[in-house]
Amino acid sequence: MTPDEELRARATRVIPGGMWGHQRAQALPRGYPQFFKDARGARVRDVNGKEYIDMMCSWGPVILGHQHPAVDAAARAQNDKGLCLDGPTEHAVVLSELLVEKVVHADWAYFQKNGSDAMTTCVTLARAGTGKRKVLVARGAYHGAVPWCSPSVAGVTAEDRAHIILFEFNDAGSLKDAIAQAGDDLAAIIVSAFRHDLGRPLEMPDQSFAEQARRACDATGAALIVDDVRAGFRLNMGGTWELFGVRPDLSAWSKAIANGHPLAAVTGNDRFREAAEQVFVTGSFWYAGGPMAAAVATLSELTRIDGPALMRRSGERLRKGLAEQAARHGFDLRQSGPPAMPLVQFVDDDAQSSLGEAFCGEALGRGVYLHHRHNMFLSTAHEDDIIDDLLTRTDEAFAALAKRR
Amino acid sequence: MTPDEELRARATRVIPGGMWGHQRAQALPRGYPQFFKDARGARVRDVNGKEYIDMMCSWGPVILGHQHPAVDAAARAQNDKGLCLDGPTEHAVVLSELLVEKVVHADWAYFQKNGSDAMTTCVTLARAGTGKRKVLVARGAYHGAVPWCSPSVAGVTAEDRAHIILFEFNDAGSLKDAIAQAGDDLAAIIVSAFRHDLGRPLEMPDQSFAEQARRACDATGAALIVDDVRAGFRLNMGGTWELFGVRPDLSAWSKAIANGHPLAAVTGNDRFREAAEQVFVTGSFWYAGGPMAAAVATLSELTRIDGPALMRRSGERLRKGLAEQAARHGFDLRQSGPPAMPLVQFVDDDAQSSLGEAFCGEALGRGVYLHHRHNMFLSTAHEDDIIDDLLTRTDEAFAALAKRR
Repeated sequence: MTPDEELRARATRVIPGGMWGHQRAQALPRGYPQFFKDARGARVRDVNGKEYIDMMCSWGPVILGHQHPAVDAAARAQNDKGLCLDGPTEHAVVLSELLVEKVVHADWAYFQKNGSDAMTTCVTLARAGTGKRKVLVARGAYHGAVPWCSPSVAGVTAEDRAHIILFEFNDAGSLKDAIAQAGDDLAAIIVSAFRHDLGRPLEMPDQSFAEQARRACDATGAALIVDDVRAGFRLNMGGTWELFGVRPDLSAWSKAIANGHPLAAVTGNDRFREAAEQVFVTGSFWYAGGPMAAAVATLSELTRIDGPALMRRSGERLRKGLAEQAARHGFDLRQSGPPAMPLVQFVDDDAQSSLGEAFCGEALGRGVYLHHRHNMFLSTAHEDDIIDDLLTRTDEAFAALAKRR
Repeated sequence: MTPDEELRARATRVIPGGMWGHQRAQALPRGYPQFFKDARGARVRDVNGKEYIDMMCSWGPVILGHQHPAVDAAARAQNDKGLCLDGPTEHAVVLSELLVEKVVHADWAYFQKNGSDAMTTCVTLARAGTGKRKVLVARGAYHGAVPWCSPSVAGVTAEDRAHIILFEFNDAGSLKDAIAQAGDDLAAIIVSAFRHDLGRPLEMPDQSFAEQARRACDATGAALIVDDVRAGFRLNMGGTWELFGVRPDLSAWSKAIANGHPLAAVTGNDRFREAAEQVFVTGSFWYAGGPMAAAVATLSELTRIDGPALMRRSGERLRKGLAEQAARHGFDLRQSGPPAMPLVQFVDDDAQSSLGEAFCGEALGRGVYLHHRHNMFLSTAHEDDIIDDLLTRTDEAFAALAKRR
């Protein structure tokens, strides 16, 4: 047995289903490892010792590359003074000030541990601030793994979603209908920074759709909530919807905010400051200074090097290379989403993404860790030589795939 | 301005109300600092440089003392290989095995980041496993800061609590009525490890009450959920209700599990294993190996030194000393709860706990950080000399309080 197989066998006994959540290997193409050992820069290594160019970046948190020295040193400087004290450290203030400076809509900030925490807090804030209850959510959007928004309904009651009204992303008529359905009870419209539903092409919001959502909130007093948990700081340092000049009232952040140190944040404008003073949200580890110091270092470094521009350029290099290779090997690719968070699909694929799975499997064998249905993530460590190395391997993967056809 | 005052002024501009949640200084007696700098062993220091004997242990997480070398080294050994990889590390398996070995009712385990995550997961699991909806919760019990259980109702809708039925802790008739009210729709009975509601004397569960809850779940197929988030591993390494020989179906853990490294866990028996495979719960940082390695080190060390016995002994020394001092200075104390998690109140206090506040203020000035309404926490670093040092200071605090009377 390989170390991965041995750990899986042990896990089956003491972990339900052998693993849970989004990092279950069962949800990945055959051959993907379940357990990992270490990572540095743009490379990650599994417990079997095989190294991969990492195109998932731990599903988002890693934005400056694994083990970024300045970020980890900032965290360690605080952690070595104590992890959890009897109150917050100065880093809570410094990071709040930095977010208010960088995030254009933000007048204030506070901190949690999970993206789900931040999104649930936004909904609670919207309801507290408006005194209303209905929350509009795009069908198929992922906003967390708690009952009001989980993609699974196991253990979820109808009441958990009693005040959720669904609309279609980028569909003006559908959003208008949902707003009408909420009547005078509209608390919030929630939108992902862009549409990144599992298994379907990624889609940026239309300018008119973004403006429609903003106008509806202005007209009714509802909160416009942008879920920037997944996209935050990869596309724009001021908030993803700055790309459209549309400002939310509340934003949720997590994943990349501290380059892998555990942190989430809510930012809001002054209209919701009083609500934010009223709601009670807290957690045992939420005041720890280390992850906040890491976030300060992460956001400062991303600003200094213009991280979003670097990742866009690398993503464009990747996209161009893959398109050229696919065409040469006779495949028709559908590459969607912002270049820094790409999804690569095969136009002629079946509903099970068989072709995508096969391609990922071929790439995996050649040391490239891809995902066939979920957007991938670049980091600023994905420099030209990494992308070129990756493309050498994907060229072989396409060739192998063509041979199997 | 002191550094604390300066940070408070800055915080007021960029953090709603200047701070949020359970570590807001506004909820503490006058004079308590808001911001902290560092901590070691049983001592914590605020940003003004004043050092205190720490009787809150960050409200629970610190159980082996701040900066425990073996725990922090275990975390660092993994963190220095990468914080977040593309899947879990071997530590997820090792820690699950350790929990299954130590926690008597546990056949499996999995991990989250907040106590609220663990409790929400338990409720979701109970509903998924039973196909039923009603959840019984003791009135006034704290189980987290999310809408279904938050102590605040700001931003909470009636539907968030539609299937919650309240009962009185340790009241057989009340529990019986709540069970009857649930009818054939009973999913779970939730109990705190012991009653630790803010501001009222702590109370261990009666043996008969614990057995009644177990019997009711056996009779109906509902899940008995013990919320061991706050008490876990301070009183008994096998689960707090091992003190009564009563085993839950599901337990929630967090706080002390990794001595301040951010982690929560759910353990369950085989009756709920299939449900645990069905529900979807996940988070961006939940697979990070460092906090799990820290938990393995924490639980191993607590076992090696019999941490619960040490903390009980120190707590008894503290209780005896305080009782003697109070009597000598003419105060009637009500000391409640397990010695390792004590609450100290004045029998003659008013509803605002004015006397408690005044005593805490006097102790604070003398370098002892207490809480007047919330249970406090001992760690294994609270050795005899620390307790004796503390008692020297509280003796002066009692004297000052007597003089003010």
